[in-house]
Amino acid sequence: MRNLLLTLRYDGSAYHGWQIQENAVTVQEKLQEALYPLLGHAVNIYGSSRTDTGVHALSFCCNFKTDKPLENGTIVSALNATLPYDISVLNCREVPLDFHSRYSCTSKKYIYKILNSPMRDPFLEKRSFHYKYPLDEKMLNAEAQNFLGTHDFSAFCSSGSSVESKIRTVYEAKVIREGDIVEFSVRADGFLYNMVRIMVGTLLNISQGKIAQNQISEIIKSKERSAAGITAPPHGLYLAEVNYD
Amino acid sequence: MRNLLLTLRYDGSAYHGWQIQENAVTVQEKLQEALYPLLGHAVNIYGSSRTDTGVHALSFCCNFKTDKPLENGTIVSALNATLPYDISVLNCREVPLDFHSRYSCTSKKYIYKILNSPMRDPFLEKRSFHYKYPLDEKMLNAEAQNFLGTHDFSAFCSSGSSVESKIRTVYEAKVIREGDIVEFSVRADGFLYNMVRIMVGTLLNISQGKIAQNQISEIIKSKERSAAGITAPPHGLYLAEVNYD
Repeated sequence: MRNLLLTLRYDGSAYHGWQIQENAVTVQEKLQEALYPLLGHAVNIYGSSRTDTGVHALSFCCNFKTDKPLENGTIVSALNATLPYDISVLNCREVPLDFHSRYSCTSKKYIYKILNSPMRDPFLEKRSFHYKYPLDEKMLNAEAQNFLGTHDFSAFCSSGSSVESKIRTVYEAKVIREGDIVEFSVRADGFLYNMVRIMVGTLLNISQGKIAQNQISEIIKSKERSAAGITAPPHGLYLAEVNYD
Repeated sequence: MRNLLLTLRYDGSAYHGWQIQENAVTVQEKLQEALYPLLGHAVNIYGSSRTDTGVHALSFCCNFKTDKPLENGTIVSALNATLPYDISVLNCREVPLDFHSRYSCTSKKYIYKILNSPMRDPFLEKRSFHYKYPLDEKMLNAEAQNFLGTHDFSAFCSSGSSVESKIRTVYEAKVIREGDIVEFSVRADGFLYNMVRIMVGTLLNISQGKIAQNQISEIIKSKERSAAGITAPPHGLYLAEVNYD
């Protein structure tokens, strides 16, 4: 028996996120459909994250077990030949049998792309959030530094989450601009439900003056979802890295 | 009466090119449908180029005449509010009454994007041509310099073209790489039918050894379509600039 770790990239526009559910098309379902004829047996696929509807992945990890003696390169080629064009497999490698793509993960990085321009861009539609009003990326970057460190991020978690601890450690947070794209990136040991989207919404609300500057530490301390900003829409969000030791 | 020049950007994936035709959806048709309720009268729209099915435009120009006293900024906003997401209007400005977006044009620039990687990329599908085998961009750039100058480009014109003169002047031609993207760009006073796609196909055939190096000048001189390479697929092609004096 081998435990195989796949790295995927997908445009989430057409999917109801990663995780299989009834009456909705998901990335996991497409991957299962492609794996079944290749392996000749059904598998449970364990994903590194649940991504929401419309969220993208530059690098998503998942693992499954099989005793089928296929070469890793063959699995990559065969999957890429049958998966829809908006999902591709970047890599396949063997990992220890007790490896789990979610629980073995030491940190993840997300990026959030904002098209900051008065004009729509057909090539960035569904792949960025279009925000027309000027953003000061230097001010937002300074604000974002307040996310760093180990905190109870309850204020940055949507209701409905059932996780026990809301303490997470943020290792990196920054806002940069490249042309009309303002990009927020954040790396942490784990993320709460909608955490990145609420961080982005809070930065946007600060930009709008709806939340004062230098308040992020206070918002974190409040542990109150209502103290933070809006939840930014899903289509600007990309899972960018899943790291293991 | 005013003559208005619009600059558009569009993802051509869903369209049978620019020009209106029966039984196929085109960019011109979508623009006409958006202009009609705004102007309250039908207009002829003159495009700077016919783009083929699947070809994209970063900057496409077209003009139309109206006596409707609308501000240019209002036209841009109103069109962007009603056009489909894969077409956007970047600019609207008034031009002399005798201006014609095609005949007044002094040069155009096209770029062709090749995803040069063994792996598919969901975010570049339909927006680049996926070519898996290694490309030497420096060699191809040196080859591309042979396109420069004033030549009869009959060898780089698909059959079915009815233009009288096939003499064109190429001002710039280059091949660069940025990561996995190899990009060919070419600026000329005008282009023949499929000219850029045959240039790219010829460069690919040189890379494959199907056409020897240092043969482009001979191919041009032959004026024989059969001497040049394949016609590269449309979805890597972008109209990038339309220049007027």
